[in-house]
Amino acid sequence: MASERSLIERIGKEIPSRGAGVLRLGIGDDAAVLRLHGKRDWVVTTDAFLEGVHFLAAHPPRMAGYKALARATSDLAAMGARPRYFWMSLALPPSRLGRWLSEFLRGMREAAVSFGLLLAGGDTTKCPSFGVNLTVLGRMAAGQPVLRSGARPGDLIAVSGKLGEAEFGLRLFQRGLYRKKDARKLLRRHLQPEPRLGLGEWLARTRMASAMIDISDGLSTDLAHLCEASRVGARIRAAKIPAVTIPAQWRRLDLDPLPLALHGGDDYELLFTVPRRRAVRLPKHWRGVPLTVIGETVREKTLTIVEASGLSRRLHPRGWDSFRQRG
Amino acid sequence: MASERSLIERIGKEIPSRGAGVLRLGIGDDAAVLRLHGKRDWVVTTDAFLEGVHFLAAHPPRMAGYKALARATSDLAAMGARPRYFWMSLALPPSRLGRWLSEFLRGMREAAVSFGLLLAGGDTTKCPSFGVNLTVLGRMAAGQPVLRSGARPGDLIAVSGKLGEAEFGLRLFQRGLYRKKDARKLLRRHLQPEPRLGLGEWLARTRMASAMIDISDGLSTDLAHLCEASRVGARIRAAKIPAVTIPAQWRRLDLDPLPLALHGGDDYELLFTVPRRRAVRLPKHWRGVPLTVIGETVREKTLTIVEASGLSRRLHPRGWDSFRQRG
Repeated sequence: MASERSLIERIGKEIPSRGAGVLRLGIGDDAAVLRLHGKRDWVVTTDAFLEGVHFLAAHPPRMAGYKALARATSDLAAMGARPRYFWMSLALPPSRLGRWLSEFLRGMREAAVSFGLLLAGGDTTKCPSFGVNLTVLGRMAAGQPVLRSGARPGDLIAVSGKLGEAEFGLRLFQRGLYRKKDARKLLRRHLQPEPRLGLGEWLARTRMASAMIDISDGLSTDLAHLCEASRVGARIRAAKIPAVTIPAQWRRLDLDPLPLALHGGDDYELLFTVPRRRAVRLPKHWRGVPLTVIGETVREKTLTIVEASGLSRRLHPRGWDSFRQRG
Repeated sequence: MASERSLIERIGKEIPSRGAGVLRLGIGDDAAVLRLHGKRDWVVTTDAFLEGVHFLAAHPPRMAGYKALARATSDLAAMGARPRYFWMSLALPPSRLGRWLSEFLRGMREAAVSFGLLLAGGDTTKCPSFGVNLTVLGRMAAGQPVLRSGARPGDLIAVSGKLGEAEFGLRLFQRGLYRKKDARKLLRRHLQPEPRLGLGEWLARTRMASAMIDISDGLSTDLAHLCEASRVGARIRAAKIPAVTIPAQWRRLDLDPLPLALHGGDDYELLFTVPRRRAVRLPKHWRGVPLTVIGETVREKTLTIVEASGLSRRLHPRGWDSFRQRG
């Protein structure tokens, strides 16, 4: 079956999507960029969050509401924009109108307050299955959005935070282990992710990042997206990847941190490239969030991972793509 | 069950939705208005179009694609804005990825070209049922958006076009009568509605309209929305309402034009109020579209319809509301 990527290309061919004027950047990046006047760029993204696809009936509604907005807002973090307004389109089954909806809205309010967002409008429809679509608008200084396409061969590849934690949290949740004490932090990464808004802004303002994307579908998939947009390849080192630390009592689950970090979705960390001349100024932490160089971009348009053993192998995108079976 | 209106109020109470700054108008109108710099207002609306709710599997996909964008864009017509960009969030079942999607996108392209819209971004997700969410951005001169809330008691109430045609077209479609010759125009009103973009801009630019809304849910329901926002009532005359003309061969269907015109949805005509001092300049037609005065706003906050017999009765909103049974 076609991947989401090829579907987006098909839509872009079918419907007029490029123009001069105020649209500086259209489909294919994390968000669109509009230069509505000289001093500011406005960044707009739209994102669906559907029951049965992006979350399950078993998920607490308050967490679903939080995560829906976090997920959409993370696309702004990946451009370096500051969130301002959002629009919500709700499709609601009658059974969800009561307490469930109140909890969902409560979670969304918490996210809106945390991210600095105001609700500017929306739409509501009765529908057999629950879904919400969020359009988020942010702003930043003109010319500063960090695109997926800005990497050049030889740039360093870096990530924020730890990868695979949200996926590990999901596995705990699926196994019903969410009441355990040490599960909380990992579950929170799955249920209530924090878009890296401040870091994204900083990477854009300082022009530290030449290209950027948020890791929503998994490192292997999102790295492929960034490289494709930038027309480069990548070479990353397994030993450098800041993978989830699995607490002792969960070792019996036999989950390997590296695949979780490579292909697990929903971390909402930032994956970015840094030109070598700027790399010396890249801190090891930014306000407590670790920043880790995991490799570099290369001219040849393939993704390679160097195993701890020193052997190299091709890295195939095996993260989340709702249009493709997971490999 | 709660109406859509009360649901929107609940959301507005739950989530921070008002702020100073660039958001001039938030939830509750046809669209939000952003004053991003001094000379222009930007108008943003978001709209879901779901299979089984807004259209049926029996509908031709090309028409569904056209109508999805027409429906969303009509909210901009109702403010007087000129459409510029849109964002599409697609939820697609695997069965719809082939020819069906191509036809849907073809219809959407035709609408985009017709309305002057460029696709600026979007999102795609695999999902058991088909749905699309569209966010449309338009622009206009600062301070000129026509709100729902601008009517004052004594303003004249006017509508564009003929009402009930789309509903009549739907009835023909439901009865499988769409291959008949005289059905075409009425079916087109149902399948391929035209938002009144030029008229909306003109009514805003000339400040002819003091308040405006598009008739998407039916005259009785949308008039109630406008009156509620303006804190006025209305008194309209049945004999003045430009109702669908039912061709001779369909008279046997025993459909009364007046209820179709009062409660039928999907016409996407404009309903607007005109201060009396400006009414003398209101033409009978605008570029071929009839403009008809059907009554006036009143101080008492009820809706009244004066029947052809001269008797008055309360007019209850009985148009489309997916959250309420139709009366």
